[in-house]
Order: sequence, then C-alpha cells, then structure tokens
Amino acid sequence: LLCLRKSKGKLLNARIPEENTQCRQGLYFQDGERRVDYILTYQIKKPGSSRRHSSRLTDNALTRSLRRSRGPPPQQDPEGATQEHNLQYHEDDKRVCREEFEGNLMEMGLDLEKDENSKTPGMGFVKIHAPWHVLCREAEFMKLKMPTKKVNHGSSLVEKMNTFISKVTEPLHPKVEENRIHNVKHLSYPFSREKQHLFDLSDRDSFFDSKTRSSIVIFLKCLKILIPLQLLYEEWASYSVFYKYQPISLVRKYFGEKIGLYFAWLGVYTQMLIPASLVGVIVFLYGCVTVNDDIPSMEICDKRNNVTMCPLCDRACSYWNLVMACGTARASHLFDNPATVFFSVFMALWAAMFMEHWKRRQMRLNYIWDLTGFEDEEDHPRAEYEFRVMQKSLKKDQNAQKVWGIQGRMFLFLLFIYFIGVTFAIVFGVIVYRISTTSALHMSSDPTTRSNVRVTVKTTAAIINLVVIIILDEVYGAVARWLTILEVPKTDKSFEERLIFKTFILKFVNAFTPIIYIAFLRGRLVGRPGSYLYVFQSYRMEECAPGGCLMELCIQLSITMLGKQLIQNNLFEIGIPKLKKLIRYIKMKKGAFQEEEQREKKLQRYETDHFLEPYAGLTPEYMEMIIQFGFVTLFVASFPLAPLFALLNNIIEIRLDAKKFVAELRRPIAARAKDIGIWYNILRGIGKVAVIVNAFVISFTSDFIPRLVYQYMYSPDGSMHGFVNHTLSYFNVSDFEEGKDPLEPMHLGYRVEICRYKDYREPPWSQTPYEISKEFWAVLAARLAFVIVFQNVVMLMSDVVDWLIPDIPKDISVQIHKEKILMVELFMKEEEVKMQNSDSMAMRADKDNCNNHSSVHRSESTPNSHGSVF
Amino acid sequence: LLCLRKSKGKLLNARIPEENTQCRQGLYFQDGERRVDYILTYQIKKPGSSRRHSSRLTDNALTRSLRRSRGPPPQQDPEGATQEHNLQYHEDDKRVCREEFEGNLMEMGLDLEKDENSKTPGMGFVKIHAPWHVLCREAEFMKLKMPTKKVNHGSSLVEKMNTFISKVTEPLHPKVEENRIHNVKHLSYPFSREKQHLFDLSDRDSFFDSKTRSSIVIFLKCLKILIPLQLLYEEWASYSVFYKYQPISLVRKYFGEKIGLYFAWLGVYTQMLIPASLVGVIVFLYGCVTVNDDIPSMEICDKRNNVTMCPLCDRACSYWNLVMACGTARASHLFDNPATVFFSVFMALWAAMFMEHWKRRQMRLNYIWDLTGFEDEEDHPRAEYEFRVMQKSLKKDQNAQKVWGIQGRMFLFLLFIYFIGVTFAIVFGVIVYRISTTSALHMSSDPTTRSNVRVTVKTTAAIINLVVIIILDEVYGAVARWLTILEVPKTDKSFEERLIFKTFILKFVNAFTPIIYIAFLRGRLVGRPGSYLYVFQSYRMEECAPGGCLMELCIQLSITMLGKQLIQNNLFEIGIPKLKKLIRYIKMKKGAFQEEEQREKKLQRYETDHFLEPYAGLTPEYMEMIIQFGFVTLFVASFPLAPLFALLNNIIEIRLDAKKFVAELRRPIAARAKDIGIWYNILRGIGKVAVIVNAFVISFTSDFIPRLVYQYMYSPDGSMHGFVNHTLSYFNVSDFEEGKDPLEPMHLGYRVEICRYKDYREPPWSQTPYEISKEFWAVLAARLAFVIVFQNVVMLMSDVVDWLIPDIPKDISVQIHKEKILMVELFMKEEEVKMQNSDSMAMRADKDNCNNHSSVHRSESTPNSHGSVF
Repeated sequence: LLCLRKSKGKLLNARIPEENTQCRQGLYFQDGERRVDYILTYQIKKPGSSRRHSSRLTDNALTRSLRRSRGPPPQQDPEGATQEHNLQYHEDDKRVCREEFEGNLMEMGLDLEKDENSKTPGMGFVKIHAPWHVLCREAEFMKLKMPTKKVNHGSSLVEKMNTFISKVTEPLHPKVEENRIHNVKHLSYPFSREKQHLFDLSDRDSFFDSKTRSSIVIFLKCLKILIPLQLLYEEWASYSVFYKYQPISLVRKYFGEKIGLYFAWLGVYTQMLIPASLVGVIVFLYGCVTVNDDIPSMEICDKRNNVTMCPLCDRACSYWNLVMACGTARASHLFDNPATVFFSVFMALWAAMFMEHWKRRQMRLNYIWDLTGFEDEEDHPRAEYEFRVMQKSLKKDQNAQKVWGIQGRMFLFLLFIYFIGVTFAIVFGVIVYRISTTSALHMSSDPTTRSNVRVTVKTTAAIINLVVIIILDEVYGAVARWLTILEVPKTDKSFEERLIFKTFILKFVNAFTPIIYIAFLRGRLVGRPGSYLYVFQSYRMEECAPGGCLMELCIQLSITMLGKQLIQNNLFEIGIPKLKKLIRYIKMKKGAFQEEEQREKKLQRYETDHFLEPYAGLTPEYMEMIIQFGFVTLFVASFPLAPLFALLNNIIEIRLDAKKFVAELRRPIAARAKDIGIWYNILRGIGKVAVIVNAFVISFTSDFIPRLVYQYMYSPDGSMHGFVNHTLSYFNVSDFEEGKDPLEPMHLGYRVEICRYKDYREPPWSQTPYEISKEFWAVLAARLAFVIVFQNVVMLMSDVVDWLIPDIPKDISVQIHKEKILMVELFMKEEEVKMQNSDSMAMRADKDNCNNHSSVHRSESTPNSHGSVF
Repeated sequence: LLCLRKSKGKLLNARIPEENTQCRQGLYFQDGERRVDYILTYQIKKPGSSRRHSSRLTDNALTRSLRRSRGPPPQQDPEGATQEHNLQYHEDDKRVCREEFEGNLMEMGLDLEKDENSKTPGMGFVKIHAPWHVLCREAEFMKLKMPTKKVNHGSSLVEKMNTFISKVTEPLHPKVEENRIHNVKHLSYPFSREKQHLFDLSDRDSFFDSKTRSSIVIFLKCLKILIPLQLLYEEWASYSVFYKYQPISLVRKYFGEKIGLYFAWLGVYTQMLIPASLVGVIVFLYGCVTVNDDIPSMEICDKRNNVTMCPLCDRACSYWNLVMACGTARASHLFDNPATVFFSVFMALWAAMFMEHWKRRQMRLNYIWDLTGFEDEEDHPRAEYEFRVMQKSLKKDQNAQKVWGIQGRMFLFLLFIYFIGVTFAIVFGVIVYRISTTSALHMSSDPTTRSNVRVTVKTTAAIINLVVIIILDEVYGAVARWLTILEVPKTDKSFEERLIFKTFILKFVNAFTPIIYIAFLRGRLVGRPGSYLYVFQSYRMEECAPGGCLMELCIQLSITMLGKQLIQNNLFEIGIPKLKKLIRYIKMKKGAFQEEEQREKKLQRYETDHFLEPYAGLTPEYMEMIIQFGFVTLFVASFPLAPLFALLNNIIEIRLDAKKFVAELRRPIAARAKDIGIWYNILRGIGKVAVIVNAFVISFTSDFIPRLVYQYMYSPDGSMHGFVNHTLSYFNVSDFEEGKDPLEPMHLGYRVEICRYKDYREPPWSQTPYEISKEFWAVLAARLAFVIVFQNVVMLMSDVVDWLIPDIPKDISVQIHKEKILMVELFMKEEEVKMQNSDSMAMRADKDNCNNHSSVHRSESTPNSHGSVF
C-alpha cells in the first residue's frame, strides 16, 4: 500500500492539437500502435513536496483496482497513511516501491512504457495501455452495458412529434452530432465474452470509447480528446451560446457521468427558473399596478388623517407624523400584496415540479447513457481510517473498531456547534452595531446627519453583513473540511457526505441567519412605549417601519443575494483561479518565465496538464447553487424577483463553469454516477423547509393576515378603510418612564397628549391599560391557523404533484419495454440458429458415421468402424 | 387470443398424501419419469358457466408467456374480451381452439399429457411438463439468480453473535430446516447456459425448485408440495405456535414471494406492536394511578363547590349540579393526561421506526431470496382494455387511445364522490337519530327511562354505527371493484392499483367519519344558552360531557375497533368461507352427498383442489391491516390501548390467514414481488396524516392546552386550582329565549338565577355580554401554536429516524460486499483455468501437429498430414 502511494497518477487536460505528429507521439506508445490510456507521473528529485489531493485520489483508484482483481493485498501496511505526515523515504526505497507497483500493473495485463525523454526536469512519466483482452475481461466483470448490433428504430406518433419539436427548437440545440442521431439507439446488453457475437466489434479501437475504457481499467483514463474538446469549446464553454441547450452527452463523454449530471442538473434548474421568473415579474408588476388602489397606504399618505406617532428612540427622537411613512408604505405594497401569497404557493409547487422534472431527466439520462442496471461502486475504507484504527488497536484500546469514543464525538459536535455560534454572535454584533450607531447618530447635533440616519445605518449594516457572509463562507468551507478530517470517516463516500453535510449546515446558517432575524425577530421584541426592551440596558431594540418589516427583509435579501452572486461567482470563480495560476507560475519559474513558456509549447499534452489547477470536486459548485436555491424558495414570499436574479446569474454560471472545466482545471477523473446523490436530499429538505418558512413569512412578517382579520371581523363596512387606525394603539404621553420622554416634545408644532404606536394593546383609558388586547389574540390565532392551513395544503399539493407526475417519462418506459422485446427476439433468433446448427451438426455427424468418417473424439468410442476404412 | 381463454388453468392445493402410488400417479406423467409442472382444466359439457377470475388470470399468464416467446401473436382478436359477456361458441369450436393452444404450448417445448381416466364428469385435465432445456432457456431469459457451487461461510464476530442470539431465541423459531442452515448461503448468479459450470447441477430434478420452476415457465406452477405442506401445517398454520416466528422462507417457497412478503410484513407489524402495546398500557396505568391527584376532576367531584349548570336540553331538562359529572371527569383523566401527549409523539416515531424496520426486513428478504437484481414483470394491456379501445376505434372515435373521454372520467369521479357522500349522509343520520331519540326520551314521563337516556342512546348509536360500518365495508368493496371495471384501466397492475386506491378511500372514510365527527365537531357547534344551534329547527346539537369529548371519542374508538375486528375477522373470515363451501357442496350434489364424498377421496389431488375456494388476491388482507394501522396511529392520543387490541387481534390473524391459505383456498399462483407495492405508500401516508390528526386531538379534543394556558397565564398561584371555574361561563337565566327555559326550574331545590356552561364567553354583566372572550382567543392561539410545533417537531424527528437508520442492514451490506469479492475471485480462477487450458490446448495442438495426430476440425486445414498417418 505504501508503495502505491509513492507514484502519482494524473489525468490529462488537453489543448487543441497543433501538430499531428507530436500528438500521435503523445497519444500512442513508441510503436505508434498502442494507445496511451493512462499516465502515471512521479517525481524523481523532490520527494513528497507537491503532493496533491487529486493525485492521491487517483492512486486510491489504482490501489483499489489492484486490490479488487488480486483479492485483498497480501500485507496491508497501515503506516502507509503516515507518509503524508512525517516519514521520509530514500529515493531508492521509492524506486523499489514504484517498481513493485508497476510489476503489479503488468501482472494485471497492462502494458507500460516509460517516457525517457521527458522535458520536465524532476518528473518521470509512465504510459499505460490496456490491451483488448484486459478491456474485455474487465467489462465483463463490471457488467458494463455495451451497444449490440441491434438498433431500436423509433417510428411511433410520439416520436414523430418529438422530431417535429426538435426541429422547431433546432437553434436552441448545440451543434453536436449526437443530438441528431439521438432516436436511433443501439440496444445495450451487459458485455460478456461468451456473447461477443451480439456486439458490433468491427472496430475494436472504438468499441470501448474513451470514457468506457476509463471505467474499464477502473479510473484509468485515456486520451481520446481531439474533436470533442474543440466542439466543447464552441458549443458549450462559450457565452455566445448561452441561449442553447448544453451538449450534455458530449460533456459526459469527456468528463464522465458525475460531472455530466451536474451540468444536466444545472441546466434543468436554470430552465425551470424561466417560468418562475416570469410569474415573479408578473407578481411584482401586479404590485406596481395596484399600488394606488391600496387603501391602507392611501390612508397613511392621507395628510388629513394627521396621526401622531410615538417617538422611535428615547430622548433624542420626538413625535412624528404617520404621513412620513408614506413612501415606505407604498413601497411595501410592491412586495406585500395578495399576489405574494399566490406566488409562494406557486413556488412551493414549483419546487416540487422541479424535483420531479429532475428525476425524469435523470431517468432519461440513465437510459441514454445505459446506466439503468449500474450499481454504485463498492466503497473501500480510507487509508487514514485504517491507520487510525491500527493506531488505536496498537494502544490496546477496547473500541478498536471505532476511531472516536463517545467523548471524542461529543467534542467534535461541540466544535461544530461552536462555529454555528460564531455566526449567531456575528449577526448579533451587527444588530448591536446598528442599534448603537442609530442612537449615536440620533444624538448628533448635525441635522443632515440625523435625517440620513436610517439610510446610512441600513446601508452600512447590510454591507457589513454581506462582507461577513462572504468571508465566513470561505472560512467555513475550510472548517468543515478540517472537522471532517478530524472525524476520520471510514470510506471516501462517507467522507464526502459528511463534508457536504457540515459545509451545507455552516454555509446555510451563515447565509440565512441575518435574514431570519429580520423576518421573524426584528420589531417583535420592542416592548411598548413606557416599557421598552433594552439591550445592554441602554439601547432600545429596533422597530420596523410602519409599512411592516417585509420591506427591510426584501432589501436585505436582494443585497445578500446579488452581492453574494456578483462577488463570489464572478469575482472569486474567475479571479482567484487566475491568481492562483499566476502565483504558481511565479513560484515555479522565478524569472525564467519566457524560457519556460517556450519550452511548455513543446511539451507533451500530459506534461502541460501538470501545470493546470487540480480539480477539487463538484461540492463547491453544487453548494453555491443549493444556497441560491434557498434564496429562490425560502423567502420567496417577500421577494418575488429572486428567481429572476437567479436565472440571470445561472445563464452566466453555466458557461463560466464550462470554461473552467474545459480550460482551467486538470482533466478530472471520470466518475460514474447514476444520480446527484446527497444533493437531491438536501434540495428536498430545502423544499420542505421553504413551505414552513413561507407560511411564517406570509402570516407573521407580512400584513396579509391582520388585513384579512380586520376586513372580516372588525371592519364596519367590510372594506379596508380604518385598518391603519385599527393596528395602532394609544399611548398617554404622561405614562413615559422617567428620562425617556422626548427632548423636543413640541417638534410637530403642537402639544401631544396621546401618541400612537403599532401594536394591539388596550388603550390607556381601559380597565387594564397597555395590556395585550383581544384583537391581538384573534389576529395571532388567525396567523397560526393560516400557517397550519398553508403548510398542510401546500404539502398535500406537493405530494399530489409528486404522485401525478410519473418518475419515468412515458417515452422512456415505452422504449425500455420495446428494447426488452427486441432483446428477447434477438435471443430467440440466436436460439433457433443454435438449435439448427446442433441439428445439422448431429445430422452431419450421423452422416459422417455412415460414411465412416469420424472425428478423433468419436474415434475413441467407435474404434472398430474407424479401423475398417482402410 | 380467444382460443387461449377457452381452456382453464388451475393451481393445485394439495392434501397430505395418503397413498404413495396414487400420489406418484398424480404427480408424474404416465411414464413415471416426467414430473407434472402444471395442470390445465377444461370443461367438456357445460360451456362458460363456472368461469372464475382466478382461472382467467392463469390463462392471461399463459397467453403472456406465449406472446412473449413467440413475439406478438399473429392476429390479435379484440373480440376475445367479449367472451365473458354474450358470445357462445359450440363445443367443436372450443375443441379446435384448445388444440391450437396446446399446439402452441408444445411448440414452446413443453410436454403435454391428457388425463383420460378423469373421475370428475365433465372435466378434462391436461398435464404439462417442462423439460430441462426449456427450464434452462427460460431461466436465462429471466436472468433468474440461481445458487452457484460457491458457498459463503459466515465466521465474523457479528455472525457469532447472531448465532448466539438465534440459540437463545430458539424456541421462538419454527422447527423448519431452513433456519438452521441459514448462514451457509450459496452465492447466487444470474443463470446462463454458457456458465453452467458455475452452478451445482448434480441433481437436475431439484436444481430448479418448485417455485423457481413456476417462475421459469412463467406462472406455470408445479406440484412439489409434499413435505413443506405438512411442515406448514405444524409450524405455521396452527394456533399452538402463536408465540413463534413464522417460517417465512417456507411460505415463500410454497406460495411465492408476494404472499411471503405479506406474511413477513404482518409478522414485522405484529412484532412492532409489542413495544407499542407495552408503552400504551403503561400510559393507561399512569392515568389510573394519577386519577386521584387530578385537581380539575377533584374540583368537579367536590360537593362544596356546588356549581349550577345550565340545562342540557330545552324545556324537558332542568338545571343540574356539576358534581353529577364527577364520574365522567375521573374516567376522562385515564385518557386525557400529559402522558397521552408523550404517547402520541412516541407512536408517531413508532410509525416511522416501523416503516424503517420493514424496509430493512424487506431488503434482508430480498437478499436471502436472491431478488436483489430482479426487475418487475412487464405489464401487458388487459384484454378488456384492448377490446374497449377497439370498440371505440370501430366507432371512428377521435380519442381511440383513451377509453374514457373527459366527460366519462368526470362521471366516474362524481360516482366515486357520491359513494363518499353516502357515508357522510349515514353518519349524519345516526347523529340525528341520537339527537332526536335523546330529546324524545327526555320527554318521556317514565323517570327510569329518563335516567337511562344517555346510556341507552349512546349504546344504540354506537352499535348502529358499527353495523353500518361493517355493512358498508362489504358494499364498498364491491363498489370499488365495479367502479374500477367501469374505468377499464390499461394493465393488470394499474387495475390493481386503482382498485386498491378506491377501496382504501371508501373504506377509510367509512371507518373514520363517525370518529372524526366525535373528535372534532361534536360539542363545538352547540351555540350558547339563549342562542343554541338547532338541526331541523327543533333538535339542539349534541354537547360533550363536562369531562370533555375525549371520553366519548375513546368509547366510540374502542367499540368500532373491537367490533370490527371481532365480527369481520373472526366471524366473516372463518364463517363465510365455510358457509360458501357448504353452499357449493349443496348446490353441486343435491342429496347424493355421501356418495360424492366417497368418490372425492379417490380423486387426484388436482381434482379435489377444484372444489376449494379460489384465491382472490391479497388486497382484502392488506386492507384490513391498513385500517387497523389507522386505528393504532390516527387517534392514538385518545386511546392508548389501541396497540394492545391490535396486537391481540394480529396474533390470531396471522394463524387464521395461514390456515386459510393452506387449507381453504386453491393454491394461488406464485407471483414474484420485491416489495409490498402501493401498500407501503399508503402506510406512509397514514403515518403522515396521523401526526396531524394527533396534533389536533391533543390540542382541540383534549383539555391539555386549556390547562396549560390556565396554569401559566391565569392561575393566581401557578396551580390547577380554579381551572374548572375558569372554563365555565356565566348565563343569566332571564336571558333564555321564549319557550326554551326548563319546565321544572326548581328541580335542584333552589331558585337559579345564574347558571354555568362550558365555553369562554363574556359574563352577562360585561359590556358585551355572551361575546367570545379574550381567553377564548388566547386558548385558541395556544392550541394552534401547539399544532404547528407538534406537527413540525414530530415530522422532523420522523425524518431524523428515517435518516439515522440505514435502509440496508449492516450485516446484509457486508454480506453483499463479501459475495461480490467471492464472485470476482471465482471469475478470476475460472479466467486462469481458461488461460491455462488454452495454453495447454495450443501446446497440445502443436504437439499433435508434430506427432501427426490431428482432429477432424484441424484436418481441414492440414489435409496432408492427416493422410500421411496410415
């Protein structure tokens, strides 16, 4: 095991070929016959200095394939894991190891060739070729489905319809051969050497294509990259084709199923965002159009009403007129109208539809890519895990099977909670900043400062929040990885899942805590005039504007979402890789830049690939999209434009990611996958949470329920007139606490005796002044009832959507059925041929017998007849 | 197609053999060599009189297997479907058809033999034998997993533990060979003739066992039943082994996977009911123990309080003292205490655990039964469907593809709704009966009648409800089938699913409507003194007893559940089949009973089987259990003893069903299945609904929330003292409507001015007398909040349970992994042997060539050397 880790496997990312001879030299063995399927890279001089994660992965794959075919390795050296930490081996030891490893490869039947004239100093390359019989053997092992000679011709009405549709949408499709020959599909059948006659083996070189060869020599990846890459550049990784579908099959051919599925998913998601954005825009426009018909905001803006409001802060602030809130109230209506309720129901169903749509798309891809029978790879324990278990058992620990005891797990869990706590602390810090700055600025003697207080504070606070989110996002990515490494999960798969889970929780909490604060807490813990709540005994809690908190929620959401997308995606994703590459250039060459560049042009493709950024997995890409999905669904009741922003971002994102994969990263190991794994469950979870969150946003953050209650329970004429008055309670200014009353009580120009504040409380002249009123409880009950009804109705509707839309598309299930029948026919024909053959064989044998011509085998049973011929 | 339907296939249910020769005669062809795998029965004299569903199914299966192997039938006659309705063919036509059908069977390679000396007049039998090569061919088609020579020996610690556990639980296991050799399992691999050497073919007769043979000649079922049936009688279908596990593998061997899974599911369910009943009993006992500490019921029973209550009916009733409700209040406490809340959370998690447990069990069975790679049968259109489509297209209908247009579907839907409406109407009728009888009896001048009013009415009403439920249950079974037949679903599978869905909805509504009425509506639509609500303008709506409606809910639940189980399961399931059999005996023999019985003893086994009740599918069995599951989970908050009743019922039910399957039904067609299909989804759905229903029962039906609210918001000392007083509102008797005040106002012996009633309303002396009070809204808000919290917390916990428990048991996944490695080793060894063989072959060939001994095949290429030997 140790030995295996010493050599470094690497996958090659290719450039468009310039010289054909050089290409051929790079792609084939010296004999020009055998194709290079895989390259091993090792360092000759500098041991263990630039080992990277991706290369280790490759080694793992090799180890695994070795271990699998040869049975468990004879002597597993658990110390192997420590090589990363402290052990240093001599160059000789390493060479011995490498040779042993290479010997193992050859024993498996692979051909090796060392590249002696490498142009990169300190680097050695071993080319690997998998001969035909090895490919066949492994394909049979893996029950790989390969195309047979039989072709499934589509001719039904549905298919004709499809042809028509695809003709209409022609310009949207990428110009890739694949799409056109789509409905002529060869039947697939698990490869078996006994049934070779079923398969079309006329061209052995192309029977197992690039990606299949890679799957076959498990994870060993070959180099068939010539035309596709050019096509990928033109039809995929280019902004000019943003309106087209992606050439997913091509992507999958080049990068494997796992990455293909990511881009397919991203495509489906982006596509589904189009109707969502449309409806969102319509809802927003509805708000714009009806803003003048909204009675409550009309009442607020009506100067004749002349409602005196209680001061918004102690001492420094004075009474104010409700008319001042006119602008906010009108703006709030844009996002807080009955259409929003409809929209959040729509978006909950949209999320369910999206999940269903994706399931179907996945099924379709599984069928097209012949993955229907494929089972996931076995999962092997990670070396680090085995090492830790070994260490434990050396210490004669009782729980040798477990890496962490109860206490250790507890410690890890507390660490995790601690980091979540950090987020809360920071959010709280921002709140305190906002409160304290507000009151400090209110104190200011400069009148312009005071008038700009709200704007200044809100802007700075939102920006601080955004910056904190972006910084913590990066930090949490590292923290999650660190915690998962500490945890030492047993297998690679569980490592990935635990890492994703941790990262998701941390990043999600980070992105949504400030928003949740604004949506559900802000303005609720204010207290009432004469008995306000104070933070640190001196700062009053924030209040919402009279138009409701929804407006502020909306602002916070749009700033976070837009800022995050602009900065993280465009700046980070484009800028940082370029920067890293630059740094690596500078580090490696130190001045001799020109010379290096010259030499690089002469390098083999696999040598230049060495200088590209390694592929770090799909987790960051998915994570970004999942957080975005959260923004699109979770608070959509307060921000109907979210889908539009997401759509615009994703149209760029697809091409950006494509460019990154094609040009900036080392070619990743093609991994097989049937689905998007844990991400699907996370999406479902977000969809479920979104229903509840939206129910609460509508009923508690927006004014929807109070309005309904007023209209049907309290309004004298069934209209909304008088609603504003109904939501405002009375306060007798003589009840102010000592030293809290305004410094300038005559600010409005008249003496104030009763001021109003937004709450449902008894008036000062009732038997129980300032107590919570019956209206409060009625509205609360209505709000809670709405949550229950909304949640259950929407969940039921989602389930119905789930149930109505079949998981397997109709045409695919018909195709699968057809293929089964064709396969049976094929077998029956084969059967008949066999029977006829054996019949004719038997007849011929009889004939031979009569004519006294018998085979050597028969001769043993009929020696007499044999002898009598001559 | 028409022809195929004319002959009748039937499966044989066997008796314990009495004579060996006779047995052999029945089980084998006349030559005593070829085993009988299947029997076709046809009628010679009476055409189409006693055709039954089960036989048609068998024909379908045959048709299908024919159609499959021969490709689509050359000329599909859609008229075939009409044979059930009106067409009558002559005896000659039928014979021709039968011969054509038999010819097809022979063409498939099956051997047929006619039983000429049948002892049943008017019946013909055709025995079918599937030869070895046919079995092999079909097994390869179906990719049947068969055991290879390789054995997987278990030796790990976990397995040793398992061995120990199984030793301890020895007496619980049925005495069947299977269980003991359980952990030595042959590796399985899809059967293939090219890989025959992998399989243990030493005993060809037993390689494909009874059930496998049946799967192989798809649905053709053979007769290997000798020992297992005896064992099944002793170790399964007997009440004396009620404490033992079921011999599921044996059940599956005899009846196929589908029925095996049903009994496995029933076993898991019954097993899981044990902890639930235990906790339920403990919760009930907790209620019993704490009944004397319950302050509210103490207050009700305290004579010193002397609370005068308002009359319960108009005129006839008078004021009464709260002390009279003492008994009900104390009884209510048994079911309405804080432990109930805990119990309903527990049961929600229990339901989640049960689903997980079953998934694991199913996975384990799939592994043991080698179904892991098995895909479900293709679904073929039903003949009825094809006939309808053909009819439509003959009428030149545009929508030929659809059986029903929009209007037709609408009509079917309305029919379905109508039947649900019938249930509601009947429930409403029972309510009206109860109300009117109560008031009529109250009017009675007989004092004993009046004192017994409540008891009489409740008892009769509950019994009426029960009788209606049981009768409608049978009616709805037929209605659902009728509606589904009207609908003409496309395939057998969709027929079954639609039927199940309809039956489920109808029976569920039927069983739970009265209970839902009592839980959520009764006592809520009463109005208030002075302004009661009236039905038909004369009957006041029912009120709950002062102890809350929970007590009545509990009574209704226990009567329905117990009555349903006792009558339906024990009376119907045991009685009705016996009755039917009796009727058939009487019908068939009309007096010559003795003679018939004598003759029957001489009959072949397949002939006696003809007189058994046909197997009608598992739907009724599942349905019964699903409704029971509803009783156990849906209202468990009000009736913690439900799991115990269910447990007691199921212990009997398992053996009852077993007896039925072994002795009273024709042997069913062994159907393959991987899971319990749609039932799993229905169970999940019930589990989800149960959470919501229990949340509402706790918060609205029980007094849990009002008590909490009183304790934390209104109680002066934080105790429950004064709670009863708090829940009772005041009524001034002078506010009674004209002619509604009691006839005997002095009934209690003193003049009443103020009476009390259970509601949260303002007192007569407030500004808004009899208006809903603030307390009402506060309690309502608390109730709704509780529903939200309960629902979401419990759903979250269920999801966590779902997520924490892996779907595949650890040991099974380890086994599967191990098997994969072993299989790879096996292949590698085979590979090496092949290589060596080909090497040695090549060497020998060279040698032969040198020694001038060559085979005939080689001789063609080397004719010269051949000639030179002699």
